[in-house]
This record gives sequence, C-alpha cells and structure tokens, in this order.
Amino acid sequence: MDTGSLEKMDVRDPLNDLRMSEEAVPLYEHVKKFIAEEVEPMSIKFHELGEGRKDRWSYVDGQLEMLEAVKNKAKEQGLWNFFLPNAETGEGLSNLDYAYIAAELGKNRLASECLNCSAPDTGNMEVLERVGTPEQKEKWLKPLLNGEIRSAFAMTEPGTACSDARNVRTQAVLKDGQWVINGEKYYASGAGDPRCKIMIVMVQTDPDGPSHQQQSQILVPIDTPGVEVLEGMQVFGKDDAPHGHMHIRFTDVKVPEENILLGVGRGFEISQLRLGPGRIHHCMRSIGAGEKALDLMIDRGMSRDAFGQPLARLGGNLEKISRARIELEAMKLMVLKAAKAMDVLGNKEARVWISMVKAMVPERVCKIIDDAIQMHGATGVSQWTPLADMYTSQRTLRLADGPDEVHHMVVGRNELGRMGMKKATKG
Amino acid sequence: MDTGSLEKMDVRDPLNDLRMSEEAVPLYEHVKKFIAEEVEPMSIKFHELGEGRKDRWSYVDGQLEMLEAVKNKAKEQGLWNFFLPNAETGEGLSNLDYAYIAAELGKNRLASECLNCSAPDTGNMEVLERVGTPEQKEKWLKPLLNGEIRSAFAMTEPGTACSDARNVRTQAVLKDGQWVINGEKYYASGAGDPRCKIMIVMVQTDPDGPSHQQQSQILVPIDTPGVEVLEGMQVFGKDDAPHGHMHIRFTDVKVPEENILLGVGRGFEISQLRLGPGRIHHCMRSIGAGEKALDLMIDRGMSRDAFGQPLARLGGNLEKISRARIELEAMKLMVLKAAKAMDVLGNKEARVWISMVKAMVPERVCKIIDDAIQMHGATGVSQWTPLADMYTSQRTLRLADGPDEVHHMVVGRNELGRMGMKKATKG
Amino acid sequence: MDTGSLEKMDVRDPLNDLRMSEEAVPLYEHVKKFIAEEVEPMSIKFHELGEGRKDRWSYVDGQLEMLEAVKNKAKEQGLWNFFLPNAETGEGLSNLDYAYIAAELGKNRLASECLNCSAPDTGNMEVLERVGTPEQKEKWLKPLLNGEIRSAFAMTEPGTACSDARNVRTQAVLKDGQWVINGEKYYASGAGDPRCKIMIVMVQTDPDGPSHQQQSQILVPIDTPGVEVLEGMQVFGKDDAPHGHMHIRFTDVKVPEENILLGVGRGFEISQLRLGPGRIHHCMRSIGAGEKALDLMIDRGMSRDAFGQPLARLGGNLEKISRARIELEAMKLMVLKAAKAMDVLGNKEARVWISMVKAMVPERVCKIIDDAIQMHGATGVSQWTPLADMYTSQRTLRLADGPDEVHHMVVGRNELGRMGMKKATKG
Amino acid sequence: MDTGSLEKMDVRDPLNDLRMSEEAVPLYEHVKKFIAEEVEPMSIKFHELGEGRKDRWSYVDGQLEMLEAVKNKAKEQGLWNFFLPNAETGEGLSNLDYAYIAAELGKNRLASECLNCSAPDTGNMEVLERVGTPEQKEKWLKPLLNGEIRSAFAMTEPGTACSDARNVRTQAVLKDGQWVINGEKYYASGAGDPRCKIMIVMVQTDPDGPSHQQQSQILVPIDTPGVEVLEGMQVFGKDDAPHGHMHIRFTDVKVPEENILLGVGRGFEISQLRLGPGRIHHCMRSIGAGEKALDLMIDRGMSRDAFGQPLARLGGNLEKISRARIELEAMKLMVLKAAKAMDVLGNKEARVWISMVKAMVPERVCKIIDDAIQMHGATGVSQWTPLADMYTSQRTLRLADGPDEVHHMVVGRNELGRMGMKKATKG
Repeated sequence: MDTGSLEKMDVRDPLNDLRMSEEAVPLYEHVKKFIAEEVEPMSIKFHELGEGRKDRWSYVDGQLEMLEAVKNKAKEQGLWNFFLPNAETGEGLSNLDYAYIAAELGKNRLASECLNCSAPDTGNMEVLERVGTPEQKEKWLKPLLNGEIRSAFAMTEPGTACSDARNVRTQAVLKDGQWVINGEKYYASGAGDPRCKIMIVMVQTDPDGPSHQQQSQILVPIDTPGVEVLEGMQVFGKDDAPHGHMHIRFTDVKVPEENILLGVGRGFEISQLRLGPGRIHHCMRSIGAGEKALDLMIDRGMSRDAFGQPLARLGGNLEKISRARIELEAMKLMVLKAAKAMDVLGNKEARVWISMVKAMVPERVCKIIDDAIQMHGATGVSQWTPLADMYTSQRTLRLADGPDEVHHMVVGRNELGRMGMKKATKG
Repeated sequence: MDTGSLEKMDVRDPLNDLRMSEEAVPLYEHVKKFIAEEVEPMSIKFHELGEGRKDRWSYVDGQLEMLEAVKNKAKEQGLWNFFLPNAETGEGLSNLDYAYIAAELGKNRLASECLNCSAPDTGNMEVLERVGTPEQKEKWLKPLLNGEIRSAFAMTEPGTACSDARNVRTQAVLKDGQWVINGEKYYASGAGDPRCKIMIVMVQTDPDGPSHQQQSQILVPIDTPGVEVLEGMQVFGKDDAPHGHMHIRFTDVKVPEENILLGVGRGFEISQLRLGPGRIHHCMRSIGAGEKALDLMIDRGMSRDAFGQPLARLGGNLEKISRARIELEAMKLMVLKAAKAMDVLGNKEARVWISMVKAMVPERVCKIIDDAIQMHGATGVSQWTPLADMYTSQRTLRLADGPDEVHHMVVGRNELGRMGMKKATKG
Repeated sequence: MDTGSLEKMDVRDPLNDLRMSEEAVPLYEHVKKFIAEEVEPMSIKFHELGEGRKDRWSYVDGQLEMLEAVKNKAKEQGLWNFFLPNAETGEGLSNLDYAYIAAELGKNRLASECLNCSAPDTGNMEVLERVGTPEQKEKWLKPLLNGEIRSAFAMTEPGTACSDARNVRTQAVLKDGQWVINGEKYYASGAGDPRCKIMIVMVQTDPDGPSHQQQSQILVPIDTPGVEVLEGMQVFGKDDAPHGHMHIRFTDVKVPEENILLGVGRGFEISQLRLGPGRIHHCMRSIGAGEKALDLMIDRGMSRDAFGQPLARLGGNLEKISRARIELEAMKLMVLKAAKAMDVLGNKEARVWISMVKAMVPERVCKIIDDAIQMHGATGVSQWTPLADMYTSQRTLRLADGPDEVHHMVVGRNELGRMGMKKATKG
Repeated sequence: MDTGSLEKMDVRDPLNDLRMSEEAVPLYEHVKKFIAEEVEPMSIKFHELGEGRKDRWSYVDGQLEMLEAVKNKAKEQGLWNFFLPNAETGEGLSNLDYAYIAAELGKNRLASECLNCSAPDTGNMEVLERVGTPEQKEKWLKPLLNGEIRSAFAMTEPGTACSDARNVRTQAVLKDGQWVINGEKYYASGAGDPRCKIMIVMVQTDPDGPSHQQQSQILVPIDTPGVEVLEGMQVFGKDDAPHGHMHIRFTDVKVPEENILLGVGRGFEISQLRLGPGRIHHCMRSIGAGEKALDLMIDRGMSRDAFGQPLARLGGNLEKISRARIELEAMKLMVLKAAKAMDVLGNKEARVWISMVKAMVPERVCKIIDDAIQMHGATGVSQWTPLADMYTSQRTLRLADGPDEVHHMVVGRNELGRMGMKKATKG
C-alpha cells in the first residue's frame, strides 16, 4: 500500500475530502440534541446515585432503570447502533461520518452506552456481525444489538508480551466436542459489569502452526464454570468500577466446539477486522481530551498572574499553547483521513493509516495534558481539575490496542515495502 | 478568528475539502509535462554551462538565452504567472490548486523561474498587482509579469531584530518631493542577479507614529545612486550566487515621492497582504524535501547491513522512519488546509493557519533530514548526497519570513483571543 | 555568581571533589545497617497494621508504638537529626555527606522518620535552629528535635500563583499584640498527621512594601481556633493519608506577636535559607526512583520476548536504556556537586546549583519512569509495579518547591548576569 | 563492568574526585601562557598568509616555517607530546589532567599541532607506542614524536557501514612476503596534508575468521604505488583543506609483511586501545564550543530588543539558556569522570564511560548551537558568526568515531549485562 507521497501526490485523492456527508448531518444534529436533552440530565443523577454504593462492583437500585429509560428513547428515535459502518444492521454510517459523531459521544461518559455505541461491545458486535454464524448472531449479537447484555474482549495476558500475537498462551484444546480453555487474561475491560454476559477470548489452538494461524477467537459466557474473575486491574490506582478492567483466570473452562469464531486458526485474521470504529472513536475522544486540556490551560494561564504578567504569557507558555493548537489541528485532519481511508480503501488497506493515528494521537495528547498540568501548578495534579485523570487515561491508551511501538513498526515496515515496490517497478 | 476546535467542529467546514478543483487538473498535468519535457533537459545544460564561470555573480554566454527560450515556450502555452491567486492578471488559480502545482515546481530549481513563478518576484508582483498605482504597474509590474526583469525585497536589517516591525531602522525622509533613504538591509534574496532591476524596500517613515504605522514600503531601482551592494550573505557557507542574498547599504538614496506603495505608514499593512502563495510554496517545497530525505533514508537503510540486519531495521531506525511518515502526512494536510483557508477566508483571516504551517513545517522537515543524515553515516554530511544542502536550506527557513518563535506567538495569541471571545459570549 | 564555564575552568575547583568525607563513612555504614536491621522489619508490620484502618486520617493502635520504639533505638545509637548541616545541634554532616545518606534513606518510606530526618520537619527545624528565638526554640524546636511532635509548612495557596512570592494573599494583621491571620493554604504536607502540632505559615504582612519584604513567616499551632483543615488534597487521586497534603482555611486565627520568625517582612529571606537538605534529599530520592525504574525496565525487557527477541533489544528500547543510564550518571554528579556547592559556597551562593538540579532531576526521572512503564505494557500502569505511583510522585515534584519554570528562570537570569559581569570586567 | 548505580553507590569512589592533580597544574599554566604568547600571534599570521593560496591542498612559502619555529620553542620548553597518558615517552599526564589541558588546546586551531598533540597523529602515536615493534617505532613513531611528519588513519569505507567492524571490505592478502591491499577508504582525516607520510589502514585479512579477528591494522606509506587520493570529502560543503578528509583508493598496494601492527587478526583489538585521549579531547572541545555558543546566544539575546524586551527574555529563550547551562555543567562532569575512569579502570574497562560521553556530548552541543543560531536570526547562519561552522562540525562528530547509535548500543548492552550479573549474584 502506498500511503501517498508528494512524488505521487494524487490531486484528486478522494481521501482528501474530509467533510461529513450531507446525509449524515441530520443524524449528527439529532445526536447532539439527544445528548444535551436526555443523556446529560440523566447522567448527573446516575453518578450521584452511584457515589455512595457499598459494593463498588455493582449498581445501586434505580441506576440501571434510568439508563434503560434513556436507551429506550434512543432506540425509538433511531439513535441506535450507528457505529456499525456500512452495515445492514446499523445506520450505514461511513467511518468518516461516525468520527464526527464520536467526537460528540466523547463528551459525556454515558453517551456511547445510551446509544448502544460503547466499547468493547462495538468491536464485539462488529466481529459477530461480520463473521458470526446465524446461531452465534441469534444468541449473542441480537441481545447486544438490543442493548440487553454487555460483553468483554479478553485478549491481553499478564504473562507475555501480547503485542506479538504468537505470544498468546491461553490454550484451547478440543476434547469430546468441547473446547477446554486454560490460561489467564487481564485488562478485560467491561468484564466487571454485572450485565456482562459474554466474552470473546483470544486463545492459542495450534502452538506449532504458522505464526499467524496459531490463534483462534472463541465465545465464552462469563458464567461458565472455571471462569474466575480474580481482581480489577488498576490504571494509575483507579479501577474504573463497575465497568472494570478485569484479571480473569480460565481453569478447564469448557465451551461447545461451535463457539469458535470464523474457524480454527483465524483469530489473528479477526483481529485485523476489529479495527473499525474502535480506534477512530478512541482517537477522536483523545483529541477531545486534548482540546479540553488546552482550554483549561489557557483559562488558567489567563486567570493567574506572576511576575507581572498572566502565566499564559510568561516564558515559553505561549509557545506551548501554540504547539498544542498545531498538534490538535494536525491530529484532527489525520484521524478524519484515517476514517476516510477505511471508507475508501477498506479496513485492511487502511491499517497503516490507523496505525499512524494510533501512534500519533495519544502520545501527543499526553504532552498537551502534561503542559496543562504544569500551567496549573499543584492544582493540576489535584482532584480540582480533570487533568490528572485525563492524563492517566491517555497515557494508558499508549499501551492499549497495541503499544505505540507496534504501530510504529507497522508504519515503518510499510515504508520499507513502499520503497521496495518502487524499485521493483523501476527495474 | 476561531481556528476551529472539536467543540465547535463544523461538520460541513469547507476547509476540510482538500482536493484540487477539477478545473485545475489539466493545468497541473500540463505543468508536469512541461517540466519533464522542457525544463529538465534545459536545466542540466544550464548548470553545466554555469559551472566554470569566473565571475560567480554573473551568467555565462548562452545561459540566459536557453532560459529565455523555455520561458517563451511557457508563455506561449499559457503556463505563465499562475501564482497570482484569484487575480485578473493571472490564471485565477486558487491557493489550494496552486499548492499542488508548487509541489511540482519544487522538484526542479529552474521550474519556477521558467513559468515566471519564482520568489521573490511572485510576492513583489502580488503586492504591485494589489496596491500599485497604474504608473507603478506600468513601469514595474508589466516587465515583471513579462519575465523581462527580476526584483528583490529588502526587509531584514543586520542591526535589529526585524521580527518586530517597529525595529525597522532604515529611514526614508521626504525632502523636496523625494524620499531620501539611509540604512542597511541584508539577506535581500535575488538582489545578486544581474537581471534584478527593482527592489521593494521596507523603510521607517514615522519613528514616532503608532507601532504599525511607522513603516512604509517603497520602490527603489537597484541602480539608483547611493545603493551599494556590499557582499553576498552566506547560508552555512553557501552564497547561492548569482541569485544571492545580498547585504545592501543605502546612503542618501533618492527616489520620487510617488514610489511609495499604497501610502505612507502602510508598510506593515502591505506585509500582511504578502502572505499568499509565497509561504505555501515554501512549505510545499519543504515537504517535498522531507519526502526526498525519507526516500534516501530508507534507500540507504535497506542497502547497508550492520550487526546482521539492514540499518533500517536496527535499533530505533524503523521508528524514526515511521515518525517521519506520520509527520509528512500531517504536514501535507495542514499546508493544504492553510491554502484552502486562504481561498475561503482570505489572506488576513487565514494568517493564523499560515503561521501554524510556517512554524510547523521547516522545523519538522529539519528533523527528518537530520535523521536521514544520521542513517547515511559520514556520507550524509558529504557532497555525495543532497542532504547536507537540504538541511542547511530548511534550517534557514526557520528564520526566514519570521522566525518560528514569531509564528508561535501569532498562533498562541490567537488562542488566548479565542478563549477570551468564548468567555465574552457566555457572559 | 559564576557557575563556572570552561573558559574560567578552575582546575583546582574544590567543587569537583565529590567523594564522601572519611569521617562520615562510619555513620553512613551505621545508617545502612540500622535501616536493614531495624527499620525494614518494623515497616512491614507497620504498613500491614495500618492497612485495614477505618479512619484513614489516624493511626491504628500499636502503629505509633512500634515506630517510637525504633526511633528510640536510633536516638540511643546517635543516628538522629544528622540532617542539620554543619549545625551545633546536629551531627555536623556536610551536605555532600548527607546526600549520600539521603540516597539510603530514600529506599524505605519510614527510614527518614525513624532517624528524625523527615520532611517537612527537617526544613522547619533548620529554620528554627537558624532564626528562632530562644523561646521559639524551647517551645517548638526542642520537641521536634526529640521527635515528640511533627510539623507542617503552609506556603502554597490555592488562589494565586505562589511561585511569585508577591502573590501570597494570606494576610496577617497585627492587632492588640496579636497577629490575626486570614486566608487559605493548600498542599500543606504532613498537616494531616495527628501528631502534627505546629505550622510555619507564610503570610503577607505588608501588601504595600517592597516586593520581597511584603511577606513574613509565622508559627501557628494547628489547634489554634480558626484553623480549619478542609480536606486532603490529592495527587493523581492519592491523598497520602494520614500524612496528607492538606487544604487549610485560616479565619481570624490569632497568635501572639512573638510567633513571627526572624522579623516582620523577612519571610522571603527565610525561604532562601530553607534550601538546604530538603532539595538535595528530594533529588537524591528522585535519582533513586530513576535507578529503580531502570532496573525494572531492564528486568522486564529481558524477561519478555516478542518478535523473536527480548523486548529490551527490540526497536529503540536499548537506546532508551542507554539514555536512562547516561541521564542518571549525569544527575548524580550534578546533585553531588550542588550539595558540595552548598558546603563550599553557602546556601545562598549555591542557589543556582540547587535550581539547576531541581529543574533537571524530576523532569528527567519522569521520562525514565515513563519509558519503564512503556516497556511493561499494561502492567506498567497497574497495581503490580510501583511505576505508576513513582511516576505520579515524580511528576508532582516538578511543581513542588517551585515549578521547573521558576528554577529555569533563576538559572537563566544568573547566566545573563554572568555575561553582564564579564562585559563590565572587560570594559 | 558496573557503571555504578545508587544501589551500589560507593561513597569513596575514586572516580568522584574530578580535580586536576597538583603536579599537573604548573604544566597547565605553562600551556595556557604558551598558547597566549606564542601560538596565537603566529596563528593569525599563518592564516592570513594561507588565505590567498592557489592550490588549496598545499601550504604557502613561510607558513610551515613559522609553524616549525613555534613547535621548536614548545619542544625546548618541554610542552610536547604530553597527550600520551601515563606513557614513558610522554609527560605521563593522566587522562583527567589532559582533559583540562585539552579544553585549552581547543581554543586555537593550531595549538594542538604546535604542541604535537593533534589528531589523528595522537591516536596513531599512541597505537605505535603501545603495540609497535622496535623497527616500526624507529621508522614512524620517532619522526611523529619529533613532529617531523604527519599521519592519517584510514578506517571508514564508503561502501559499507563500518560501525560494524565485520563490514571492513578493504582486503589485504599476503603474497610473497608482501601484503597486497585493495579497496577504498574515505574521510581519512589529515591525508590531504603534504606532510602526511604514513597511514594506519584497517584491512580485512581473514574474511572467514571469527567476527572480531577478521581485521588487521597495517602501516601504509602514503607514497606507495597504488595509493590514489581521489578527492577531498566535504562536511556540509567544506573540505577542510589542506588537512582534508580524503577519499583514497588502494589498487594492488604492496607493503612488507612486517608492516602489520600487533599481529594478523588483531585489528579490532587495536581499535579498542585507540580510545584514549582522542575522544576525551574531542568531547572537551565540543563542550568548549557549547560554552562559546551559549556566550554568543546570551550576548545577542541581550543586545537586541523586540516587542519591548531583550530577545533573551522573550518567550522560551531564558529557559533555553538555562537548559544549555545545565547540560554544559552535566557534560563537563561526565567527561571529567570518563577521563578519570580511564585513569583508574584502564581504557578497556572505561569504554562504557567513553561511549556515554561520546553519545551524550556532540548531540547536546548541537542543540545548544542550534538554539544560539535561532537567537541570532539570519545572522546565525551567515559568515558573521562562527555558529554555522560550529554546528556542522559538531553535527559531524555525531557520526565520527562511531555514530551515536553504536555508543548507545555499547551503553545499553552494558546495562543488560549489569542486571544479568546482579541476578547471577543473587541466585
């Protein structure tokens, strides 16, 4: 794939039209209105109610009810499941259109869930929709699309570097028509939610097979005997209960043979499909966080004086603000272009674009938030601003869905390939 | 001006359609063909001929003749003066369309000149076209548009930090209907060319006026008595003769009162007009240099082995390649968007976009070239690759047309203003 | 002050002998032994006991008793109060010697307290010892030196940028022989401890005086009516109870006139004395954290494989390790030299050295820890390594005791002064 | 080797006494006086005389005579050859003492040569002194020690990445008692000088041997038939004539069997000896360049105003100045410690220290010079300051004597080894 260089600059490159489609605009406006009028008032009550709960890994009476009420309204109004790009079951939104909407969803922590567009359900539904059997769809996709249950994706393992797929060590062995699973996973996000019923688990089915055919993905109901949720993993001391990032042990967990997805040895292949809305969504939210941090940085910088000037004008602070603005604008264009690349080239061909923005965005947003913290003095690390939380969650994104290094490897190798191609063409 | 934040993300923002217009495509293709078929063969001969010349500040017999021949062909074919954006006298190209063409022009050192689109004539013609009197246009714009003479812009002074306009010290005093000019300018690019006939000179006309009305711009024929070209300024040891970056002294230089442009005290205002094609052109060429450096870096990295691997795969090299690709793609989008902003918002409103790309591009291209040098070992600093030259010329761009710091100041201040505006709106 | 340049490189510069003095070696060895044999076993029990406590802002029965027992042993063995540099009441340790010991103290969270060398008591005792009246010493220094009470330093305010001393807004007005104090302070470290009895509070006594004579420092017993401890400030979500970083409101708090330290208007002057062991101690602990992070980074990097190699050898990781080692060695030498500068030049003259290391160390240690986190993948941000905690505490140090920017300002201004001096000398 | 961590911090580490020895002080003072009184006046005349020469690769009548006169004075006064550390033939200076003197030598381009301490002769003499046979010493070391001839070291090849010793491709085959050499070398510094008579050439003698025994070093008189000096290699456009960095082709060059140094297959071993004064010298000169750049940056920053302030106080400039000062102080301590490490641990054990400073110093000095350029505006890249030249020569040092990457590899691997060692010890 050629990511495009000046040399071969295509003046009519469709990837360079980064505007939302006309058709999506009404939906976009509707979503904004719905969040403002329905989600926001509810979410304030929802969090107040949950604050005092004794068991951090559960919901308090009334919480889920108010959430369901808003979900039902959304469903009725057709604001539902539109994360599925170009799919029959969804709104048929393009990734580019969805990217703009994702930016809106990122502004309220419950917005995605209210519209049934929240991770990791989105990725799981996308996978089921694309590769699930009719039975799998009936049993798991349907309730997920209806927002009746939630799900988790168990990929990363505590014992190995899972950025290399060959390192998957959780084993699934076929025995008497059942897969017997043994191993450990951690940072299975969402597995702490009492409504989480199903997990997609990455397992090793053929340790001796070719590198990228050793793995499979398999459906494991969370209440299967042998599934043990050990503890909530923390992120800089926060456990994000009750959603959670769970550490799970599988001991002789048995599921039917037909729970495998797509086929034995195709786990890696499925991973490559699972690129879609998830990462674009994450990146748009990251940029949103960056914008918020910059706003806070400027607000603080203008409201505090030292040495006879507002902080924002002291020393290198104005340049930091300028650099933040430049990075934010560049990131927005890059993420929109990556979304457009998914629409035009397909997820597989667009993977280099996705790796580019995944390697680019969280790292630079971390820098912006860090600068905003510094502008706030001690208040920047305190409970009085969201900056400390924003920092730790963006920092964690540099590790989630592949660490930066792996994405740079993808981009770098593509460059080497591009040049190889060029030479071959010349010769 | 709002540079646009996620918060106010305009999903129909016309600035996000970065494709060349359909109408410009034929011209673009024509230009590419002309460069390949006419400019390139000529330029090889032109440089060979010039190599042995004794007086570095002149042309050898035959050089200008072959150049003129190609210029005439270009004129005949209508490939002429299209740098003038949306102007009656030019092709009426948008800045965005021109940006794509500028990338092509950047590949051959004579291409711009052959199509009468080369700096600093472009900026000077743009200014004359916009603010010149009919007499000024007749006398200077016409021969410039015809490619009969060349010109220079004398702005920077050796004695003060001219990034602050108030520091202009070259004085022009009106006496008996004549401006009498005294002072020094340096890095007046193009003033070394024997065909350079006219300079636009930034002068101080009212030292006690308001900050931005102290300066005027004035037309000074280079052969006016009292104009003394002292020496060619160097850039990391290169003098770029015969074009040159000249150090000029003005001693009691007298020009008619009507040589003033636009009006007394409006020099700063003219500067703000002079943003147009010039900086976009520069930035597109910089990106072209970055692309070339990356290609060289990869080529070298794949063709040399050490410690059992190609250099490109050793240590952090692959990540450097990836980061270069990401930066290049981001810069391309940003420069195209800045060009589009000029088309949609006008030069003045687009100035923050121009400052963003001016502060962004040369600095990052320097980093890419520097990494490419490192990949080449000692060859990277030698005469065997263009990298050393590319580095020094990109490094110089971080100082030309306002140092990075000044552009960051423009962007930073705009951010402060944006937030101030927001508060005011809320209140 | 000349920080020393090559040009004036003094080949016999006593600051370049960075070895511990022979006399201090036995004490150093004794401290190490005492920590290993007494502090460490106790501290494990201490923390276990404290874990389940209901009131996070108190100690559980038995905790303080075991702490006191070890403190008494330390006192008996003469391992007590040696933080006081060159002072009659202390061990007379030089700052350089203390720096080496501080590195040892940094390895166990209770070690400093067991030897009565823990912040902020150390700074408070240092100030009292130097500028206290006999009565102040009797009342507060004595029990502090005996380890009977603890103390706090209330400097930073939530409402202004206190890096500029003129921004102190907590007011103390003399009325009927009493200071009446009104205002707010936050991040008063240690004020949460039930044993904390006394605070040194920075107040504004003369809003109209010269910039650096507006402030005074004043002794305020924490149980004075009107002192209200509002809440524990957090650091990336941690409140460090029961030590705490408290937010305190002063409402018409009255203390006797003689509680002022040194004299009215001399608050800033006292601050400059308070440089001594504190910052060196902090920096040595930071370097210790950096060393630990590097060890963890290497351990992890060697024990996990991906793409056929240990992580430590993948991509740019080995270079990151090398850069960490280089930074650590450079920082050690710089901190030791700053300590030596305090010994040789005195605290005041050494302040540029102290600013140099304060601006240098926490920022670079943050980078090392951040790289270590990245090498660990998701485990790096989890509760399974100390890295996340280490990061947040080092990040906070970039704001405590003056943000990096203020220290760079001190160093930068000194450079400008150095050059001015040079010119003056030449002239 | 343990480079020393806090954990094992040796409080009596002799490496931490970085003062010059008392015995060396008189020599140091003598050298300073000699440079001021003898070298400087001569060098001004020397360069004036050379300026107009027609053949850039030769000296003008009188130039060498005045140089020889000063060399003779130096020899008479015992200021001669003291670069040889701890050697019988030299002054027996320690590397640490020499480091201080090297800083002085770095201030005048002819100073080293006047005292017979100039590269690459120093390294060549060091090698001959340590491993030469009596015949080799008589024939080549003696005239070198007497300053009668000059020499070159031909190591790097244009066709391969010589940072990996196994890539040496210049072949030497033993035939009839003679080595027959074929291949190409470039950047052989000093080989352009008409006085250069002898080269030490790194050759491959056993392509199939173990990696580090494939190479040998061999003495090749420059006038041997088949030695062809092709051209002077440039460094950012400068050829440094007549010293030069030459590109040399060897075609069937025959030298006697006994011209081999130390023994066949020991070329790599000799390279490791050749660490001594050379790199410390380079690094001290780099630091000197950094100090000079900082002085220029401050001078310019204080003498130009913009936007109502001196440039030095505008925006982030003061912080840049502070960071430069901090880096310079840290680098000085590190280089002195590396020199001390060579004295205490020997060249081989100290190699990690040498790699640390080689990877640290030129990169950071480049940054300081680059910041100084930026502070100067266009003047910074012009012929009016030495900054452009300083930048290009420091940039080149990041490639000479092993690129930064190779030194980071050495340091990084040592860290991995250190931790391995620690584990082994624990087990």
